[in-house]
Amino acid sequence: MQTYLDCYPCIIKQALNAARLVKLSEEDQHTIVLKVMVILQDISKETIPPILAHKVHQMVKSVSGIKDPYKEAKKASTEEALRIYPWLKQIVSQSKTPLETAIRISIAGNIIDLGVYETYSDLTETVNRVLDIPFDINHLEQLKKALESTDKILFLGDNAGETVFDRVLLEYLPHKTTYVVKGGPILNDATLQDAIEAGLDKKATIVDNGSSAPGTIMELCSKDFLDLFKSAKVILAKGQANYESLSQEQAPIYFLLQSKCPVIAILYILGVNLLTINQQKTKLFIKGKKYE
Amino acid sequence: MQTYLDCYPCIIKQALNAARLVKLSEEDQHTIVLKVMVILQDISKETIPPILAHKVHQMVKSVSGIKDPYKEAKKASTEEALRIYPWLKQIVSQSKTPLETAIRISIAGNIIDLGVYETYSDLTETVNRVLDIPFDINHLEQLKKALESTDKILFLGDNAGETVFDRVLLEYLPHKTTYVVKGGPILNDATLQDAIEAGLDKKATIVDNGSSAPGTIMELCSKDFLDLFKSAKVILAKGQANYESLSQEQAPIYFLLQSKCPVIAILYILGVNLLTINQQKTKLFIKGKKYE
Repeated sequence: MQTYLDCYPCIIKQALNAARLVKLSEEDQHTIVLKVMVILQDISKETIPPILAHKVHQMVKSVSGIKDPYKEAKKASTEEALRIYPWLKQIVSQSKTPLETAIRISIAGNIIDLGVYETYSDLTETVNRVLDIPFDINHLEQLKKALESTDKILFLGDNAGETVFDRVLLEYLPHKTTYVVKGGPILNDATLQDAIEAGLDKKATIVDNGSSAPGTIMELCSKDFLDLFKSAKVILAKGQANYESLSQEQAPIYFLLQSKCPVIAILYILGVNLLTINQQKTKLFIKGKKYE
Repeated sequence: MQTYLDCYPCIIKQALNAARLVKLSEEDQHTIVLKVMVILQDISKETIPPILAHKVHQMVKSVSGIKDPYKEAKKASTEEALRIYPWLKQIVSQSKTPLETAIRISIAGNIIDLGVYETYSDLTETVNRVLDIPFDINHLEQLKKALESTDKILFLGDNAGETVFDRVLLEYLPHKTTYVVKGGPILNDATLQDAIEAGLDKKATIVDNGSSAPGTIMELCSKDFLDLFKSAKVILAKGQANYESLSQEQAPIYFLLQSKCPVIAILYILGVNLLTINQQKTKLFIKGKKYE
């Protein structure tokens, strides 16, 4: 997905949020906003949002000298999610349609996105909401078949804390899973440490993609990851940044996410055939790449 | 009020909205966004938002060659408001507290703000909502006393369409009124023509402030207007831009507005003593300058 003009103000907001998170002075916050606008002067229309976000957050790290601004926020998110983990498991075990329920729970976890929001809403409320919303368009049946056709999945994770919700889905599935995290800290995206703290190592092999950019930017990923990606029969990809960076990729990907930005929501309205659940503010997607 | 860093992304959005309103090409929209960011690189912290908005919208006019991008939108807003004018009059005439009701109606009209919103919500719904919300902090009693102490008021208008709502308030008041509009088109702010179309000439003397900046930027206003301003016993000022440009002014001003931006809402939370009605998204203000 290219960067739209609507992304410009959003990326400035993101940088400002990051600067405030590491408690930079008003003057340093100003410096950061000015530097973001210099970056934005130079990008081409084809630059995808995760590459832009990567540049901007690298710059915030370099101005602040703090390598992992979201460290504490990530820890807190994981702990908060772990507290409701037993309840999430129970919801799946009591469901009449446990696969769909487990997928919805994984999507609900995508609310923990500190790139778009400074804070996120109440997790319990989000889970109840996402469990309840009727699907509008839905590739769930195709995803079910794809899952039945293989005993292995590649799962591209997104944020710390969301990892716990993904764990609930993965523990329901009988598949051997490789769970992919980032190679270094970026936003509140999960790294190896975050995934282990979420208990994902109990179910999946955790690997990193060799990159500390948001989403999955193929050119920045390690050869090991690219080999895994190319040979995968079914790939589940969480979150907007994975959609933004992989939407042009020819691969058996199913995107699971809540759209939290009007650009992605509008792409759907324009008929880009995203799988979505209608909802007031956010939209939820299960989108099978090959069913476009 | 100074320009906050949070205003930067907002002003870029505003420029983009204006560019799209006049149907500029994607390329020209891009040019405008880049030019706004150049302007933002150079402003000082002390620049007030209306001065910034003025610069930005002048630039959009110069790139597009269109002097009044909001011309049609203003006409449509006035016509829409005139359609519910009889209903608004009836609400006041049937009210047990007609002054408060008329003030609330004038504040309700402040929803017609195309700087902040690309479109505004349903007018009838807004009126019903604003009539219903309990005040949180309230300088209404002081305003009442001020109105009792004089037979003349100076009313600083804001947007076209909102003019009709102001007319309902002014027709309820026994005061001789001077209604101030902008000297030239800026955003959807009312000019002389817009005020006449709203029927304000039936009740008030309409004058312009000699400036085509949003709000009331004293340095840009005509001497005639400044004389009126300085001699006024009671000034009612509508909308955010008037608050942003006059909040430091020592004058008997009462600000009537819906805050549609988090910065102004936060200023209130920080104890800047704004009069406000609690509400989910927007906040409504009646603020007497001298009661700070």
